[in-house]
Amino acid sequence: MIYFDNAATGGRKQRAVVQAVLASIEGICANPGRSGHALAAALAKNLSAARERLCSFFGNTDPDRTVFTRGCTEALNIALFSLPSLQTNGRLPHIVTTAAEHNAVLRPLFSLRRAGKIALTVVPLREGRVPPEDIAAAVREDTAACAFTLASNVTGAAIDPAAVRARIPPHVLTVCDGAQTCGHIPVHMQQAGIDALCVAGHKGMGGIQGSGALLFSARFDPLPLLFGGSGVLSADEDMPPFYPERLEAGTLSYPAILSLAEGTLHLQLHMERESRRLLRLTRQLHAGLQEIDGLRLYSMPNPFGIAAFACPTLQSELFAQRLSDEYAIAVRGGLHCAPRMHAGLGTAECGLVRASLSPANTAQEVRAFLSAVRAVAENV
Amino acid sequence: MIYFDNAATGGRKQRAVVQAVLASIEGICANPGRSGHALAAALAKNLSAARERLCSFFGNTDPDRTVFTRGCTEALNIALFSLPSLQTNGRLPHIVTTAAEHNAVLRPLFSLRRAGKIALTVVPLREGRVPPEDIAAAVREDTAACAFTLASNVTGAAIDPAAVRARIPPHVLTVCDGAQTCGHIPVHMQQAGIDALCVAGHKGMGGIQGSGALLFSARFDPLPLLFGGSGVLSADEDMPPFYPERLEAGTLSYPAILSLAEGTLHLQLHMERESRRLLRLTRQLHAGLQEIDGLRLYSMPNPFGIAAFACPTLQSELFAQRLSDEYAIAVRGGLHCAPRMHAGLGTAECGLVRASLSPANTAQEVRAFLSAVRAVAENV
Repeated sequence: MIYFDNAATGGRKQRAVVQAVLASIEGICANPGRSGHALAAALAKNLSAARERLCSFFGNTDPDRTVFTRGCTEALNIALFSLPSLQTNGRLPHIVTTAAEHNAVLRPLFSLRRAGKIALTVVPLREGRVPPEDIAAAVREDTAACAFTLASNVTGAAIDPAAVRARIPPHVLTVCDGAQTCGHIPVHMQQAGIDALCVAGHKGMGGIQGSGALLFSARFDPLPLLFGGSGVLSADEDMPPFYPERLEAGTLSYPAILSLAEGTLHLQLHMERESRRLLRLTRQLHAGLQEIDGLRLYSMPNPFGIAAFACPTLQSELFAQRLSDEYAIAVRGGLHCAPRMHAGLGTAECGLVRASLSPANTAQEVRAFLSAVRAVAENV
Repeated sequence: MIYFDNAATGGRKQRAVVQAVLASIEGICANPGRSGHALAAALAKNLSAARERLCSFFGNTDPDRTVFTRGCTEALNIALFSLPSLQTNGRLPHIVTTAAEHNAVLRPLFSLRRAGKIALTVVPLREGRVPPEDIAAAVREDTAACAFTLASNVTGAAIDPAAVRARIPPHVLTVCDGAQTCGHIPVHMQQAGIDALCVAGHKGMGGIQGSGALLFSARFDPLPLLFGGSGVLSADEDMPPFYPERLEAGTLSYPAILSLAEGTLHLQLHMERESRRLLRLTRQLHAGLQEIDGLRLYSMPNPFGIAAFACPTLQSELFAQRLSDEYAIAVRGGLHCAPRMHAGLGTAECGLVRASLSPANTAQEVRAFLSAVRAVAENV
């Protein structure tokens, strides 16, 4: 099988990641945050090391402001549902977001708007992208935060957080969806002035499903979304007032955290090389797709491994189905949980076929994919 | 190491569970809920089968009303934060809970009470237990739900859900914390009249950390706590109106779900035998602890493998530390995230030493544990 659906879930895990997960579930398992015995203490130490590694990898200032979540969706929900707390002088906080967002950003914000807890502006696409200046132009006097993706999961079109930061007032917070970028390009929170970075563990970061993280700056104090055991200050009726415990109710998924830590270690050593490789493959993919008659390409070469195209005579999900059935190729058709992006691109009806590569893919797979796409497009 | 901390996290996973997790992260990983290609479809089928297995194991009526969570805490939070929606005639819903609860029940309810969204009664302990009739006696005309644990995580004292159900008005919902019971004794939602069952995957169920489930009856429509991609109806601003999608935003942890399904299969075949074994070990443990001078026992033999005791001359966490340091025995001291239980037992100051067994433990380990406890108690 040719797996070109890495933007849904990274297909190949590093051997070290698999080994780390296996080591964490074989033998005696324990709960790192809950007991004081030697084994729990040893695991807690690994957990701290994972926190520090992630904090350093993403240029955050404080490992305690690096919390583990079950994925990017939980991270985004924690960050976004904390935005109403930014209200000043009793005014509803105004939030700026973009049409390029995934439902993991849009739906929490729509839910807050429905509840009358925020005012919301969704910045539209301009030629398939969201220019940083358009985000800045939507900022008003009562804007508390800009929430935007670092790259569209549909086309890989990026939004540079530093360029946004440079154009908005310093007090406006930035909440960034890193689902499709983290692990592919360097993201440095301090340098880019990011206040909340939401990380998917199971895509570019190389971890397993169920891993993720929320990193936040000293300027942003997210509120708990889940309440439960914290292992400390158990007699208190509220979650502890300090991080990370405040946001980590209940037993964490130690295997998932280890997988994310191991994936991050791999990236610390190899991301630069793998990024170059992924960009090369993505360029090859785009060059080939451009030559196929009857396709319309909606993406440009990008470091996230994404290409998106439409075949006007075949609905995207059926196109994907034929690639699967006839060529054992895995891609994703449809709307990719990003309805405003598709509306802006004019593809809300038929969707797009998205091929998403990882550095584990090969030039040969790209060639095989291209000839399969050509065959399907010529034979609809 | 003697691992007697199974109520924190089940120490030994079945070989089949480990293999299932390994199989799910080796080779090509995919996202069961997101794409239509052959691999995603195959995983989605496994996910459905897991849902059906869990639904049947717990005697629920509808597999679609069986959603996967990252643990019991998330399951409880979804169920409990949905309770304000039960308000009728604009009246604040009254919720009855108990002093035996874990913070995963107490803290969400306290948070709702602080926000003025519920009225709350916490039923106190009577001789270390919460009798079902005391829960029933706390029910008022405006009571919408009773939320209670099926067994205390501190002492293993059980609350029989059928006995509660028989004593409360039919329209009052029951939300049950199954963290310490599921996998140890049969829990049948329909027979016991349970409206929401919250399941921890990584304890008695035999799954890995990061697994859990919320099962709910046709009478209870929980609200989403997380908003995000659902793979279907992506153009809608809200989560889909139907279950399970409504409550499963974002990528699920497929490895964790598989581990829970595999653990459940093991229990379907072996729970009865393993329960007998665990009860026998727990009886042996209690009989031995009773004979040790200077200890005060706070638990009775129970099917959950739990024994809790205090040594008046040594603080519980220090007692646990000495067992770890000097005898390589893992138990948990302190408050076990259940502050009202300890307050009711009079152990809020010094905590309790909790030993929690699993069927994988042995009579020889119990003997070794007892002589270690005796040695520590005699030599404080």
